Amino acid sequence: MRELAGSPGTWSGLSLRVGQLVFAAASVCATASALGFAAYTAFCYLIASMGLQALWSLGLACLDCYALKFKKDLHSAVLVSLFVVGDWVTAILSFAASCSAAGVVVLFDRDIYACRRDPQLPCGRFELATACAFLSWAFSATSALVMFWLLASL
Amino acid sequence: MRELAGSPGTWSGLSLRVGQLVFAAASVCATASALGFAAYTAFCYLIASMGLQALWSLGLACLDCYALKFKKDLHSAVLVSLFVVGDWVTAILSFAASCSAAGVVVLFDRDIYACRRDPQLPCGRFELATACAFLSWAFSATSALVMFWLLASL
Repeated sequence: MRELAGSPGTWSGLSLRVGQLVFAAASVCATASALGFAAYTAFCYLIASMGLQALWSLGLACLDCYALKFKKDLHSAVLVSLFVVGDWVTAILSFAASCSAAGVVVLFDRDIYACRRDPQLPCGRFELATACAFLSWAFSATSALVMFWLLASL
Repeated sequence: MRELAGSPGTWSGLSLRVGQLVFAAASVCATASALGFAAYTAFCYLIASMGLQALWSLGLACLDCYALKFKKDLHSAVLVSLFVVGDWVTAILSFAASCSAAGVVVLFDRDIYACRRDPQLPCGRFELATACAFLSWAFSATSALVMFWLLASL
C-alpha cells in the first residue's frame, strides 16, 4: 500500500502537502497585500479558507516529515479516516472560496469594468490570489482523492 | 446491490433525479427572467451549467423510469462508470457555478450595496436562482457519491 503515490508518510505525499501549503500561503499574502480587500466578503472568505488550508497542510507536512524520518507507518484506519475528513472539508471549502473569488474578479474585470475605471482597485493581486487558490485546491483535491482511495482499499 | 438508496433504476434514484431536474430548471427560469442577467458572466455560466444539469438529470430520470417499468437492471460496470463520470462532472460544474453566482450576489447585496442603490437590479431573482442552484447541487452531489460507492462495490 505504501507505493500509492501521494499517500501519507511518503515523499510524494509530502510534496503534495508542500504544494498546497505554498500556494495557500501565496494566496493569503496576495489577498492581504491588496488594499481594501476587507470590503469584499468573497476575499475575506478566501483568506479564511486559504489560512485553514495552509494550517492543515502544514500540520500534515510535519507529520509526513516525522513519518519519513522515523520510518513510521501512517496507514491505520483511524488516521486515514481523519485525513479523508480533513482533506475533503478543506478541499471543498477551498474550491468554494476560489470559485466565489473568481466570480467577483471576472465581474470586476469583464462585466462592470471596475478595474479600468478605478485604478486604485488592486485587481492584479485579486487575480493572483484567485489563481494561487485554484492551484492550492488542485493539490488538495489530489490528496483528498488519494486518501479516499486508500480508505476504500483498507 | 439494488437496496442501496439512490442507485439507478430505483424509486429513490428517480426522486434524486427529479429533485436535481426541478431545482436546476427553477434556477434557469429564475435567471432567465431576471432582466439584464446576460451582462454578468457568473449568471451566464450559472444558466449554462444548470441547463446541462437539467438535461443530464432528465435523461437519467427517463432511464430510471424505463428501468422501473420494464424491471431492467442498470448496475453493469460500463453503465455505472458512465453515470459516475457524468454525475461528477455535472456536480463539480454546478458547485462552481453556484459558488461564483453566490460570490456576485453577496457582493451586490452586502459589499457595494448595488441592490439598494439600483432598484432595477433583479437581486431577488439572482438570489432565488443561486439558492435553487445550491439545492440542485446538493441532490447532484448525493447521486455522485452513491454512484462512486456503487462503482467501488462492483
